[in-house]
Amino acid sequence: MKDNKTKKMSLIVFSGSFDKLVAAFTLATGAAAVNYEVNIFFTFWGLNAIKKKEGRSFIGKGVLARFFNFLMGGRKKVPLSRLNFCGISPKLMTSLMKKRNVATLNDLYQAAKELKINLYACEMSMHILGLTLQDFDKEVKEVLGVPRFLEYSEGGDRIFI
Amino acid sequence: MKDNKTKKMSLIVFSGSFDKLVAAFTLATGAAAVNYEVNIFFTFWGLNAIKKKEGRSFIGKGVLARFFNFLMGGRKKVPLSRLNFCGISPKLMTSLMKKRNVATLNDLYQAAKELKINLYACEMSMHILGLTLQDFDKEVKEVLGVPRFLEYSEGGDRIFI
Amino acid sequence: MKDNKTKKMSLIVFSGSFDKLVAAFTLATGAAAVNYEVNIFFTFWGLNAIKKKEGRSFIGKGVLARFFNFLMGGRKKVPLSRLNFCGISPKLMTSLMKKRNVATLNDLYQAAKELKINLYACEMSMHILGLTLQDFDKEVKEVLGVPRFLEYSEGGDRIFI
Repeated sequence: MKDNKTKKMSLIVFSGSFDKLVAAFTLATGAAAVNYEVNIFFTFWGLNAIKKKEGRSFIGKGVLARFFNFLMGGRKKVPLSRLNFCGISPKLMTSLMKKRNVATLNDLYQAAKELKINLYACEMSMHILGLTLQDFDKEVKEVLGVPRFLEYSEGGDRIFI
Repeated sequence: MKDNKTKKMSLIVFSGSFDKLVAAFTLATGAAAVNYEVNIFFTFWGLNAIKKKEGRSFIGKGVLARFFNFLMGGRKKVPLSRLNFCGISPKLMTSLMKKRNVATLNDLYQAAKELKINLYACEMSMHILGLTLQDFDKEVKEVLGVPRFLEYSEGGDRIFI
Repeated sequence: MKDNKTKKMSLIVFSGSFDKLVAAFTLATGAAAVNYEVNIFFTFWGLNAIKKKEGRSFIGKGVLARFFNFLMGGRKKVPLSRLNFCGISPKLMTSLMKKRNVATLNDLYQAAKELKINLYACEMSMHILGLTLQDFDKEVKEVLGVPRFLEYSEGGDRIFI
């Protein structure tokens, strides 16, 4: 029973900044690599990570939501949570990561999909931001609310990032 | 035993931003709705959520603390963690939430109280900010330090937001 | 078995801001004081907390990394996550903490070491930032990747700050 338990990890990825997404996917892929069942539940800013459009784009329903989605960005256009310098830092950081043979955010994301990490999108955030499942990568399996998330993540860690 | 365990969730709500408070209360009320025992321990910026005065106000002991409390805000005057635009975003977000029939931050807070979620305030933060239990909503049950929080949350999830 | 389990707490300290570090060390030392085994895994901004140089310093390999490390700061030069006012707030906050007999960030850090909390540094972040174990306090025991962290933290809470 104990083994079962410690072998599941569920992340609530609320943050959409470059650095926190790198941290989330590093943790997730590292856990999946040692055979954890890993669930990631993307909510609000975190939805940036799984958008089909990797840059900024006017997606979603309603003028306000479209504008907000544009400003939020996409996986290849996310800010550093501090010292962002108008978006220069994530670019420099990515080049440093490449130079030092560390997986970039995009590498980590692709690895997550290859490792069959379960990717879920938060129903309520999508509702607010006027997004539908079609706005996300096809690997995103399901749109969930809290009760379903609790069900899927039961018996393992729940970590908010 | 397992069932017992997975049926308790304790949140350490450190953040006081609009978006993170919405996330925290959505998770908390969702868990309470499916019969989890839910504890929320509000600390530092998170204390904004439970202040009796819902807007900005000069509360607390000492000039510095009063000024800082004013700037921190209250439940109806909290910033978005990014793209705040001088407080316009939380207002727009709230109107979007209303329009799309999603519970607003205030709705979620009221629901948390109706669902008998246990609300606690962090002793040390209150000490630093010169606040007393009288500065908070009457539903806030108790002022806690870490050891008591660990005791109350034992045997369940502990999530830091 | 249950007792064993609830007596371990592992923090992933990703944040390097004054307020979150205070929260992390308060939680960690509070848990250690009631006999939890406590592990702290410092990653990215969190590495600020364990740098040997307590202020800003140009450490690390490579011009870009050195410059970034300088801007990130050190334990005595970390910003408030909000209302930082160019670094004035952490100073005022520290003086408030002293006046009110609350442990300062530095006090908490010293307490963590006295309580034999296990301090670990994240391998990947160090790689990106060009840092080595020599750049950290001698109490930092080991440089870890995710798999080792999961091993050490197994059977207890895992909290991301």
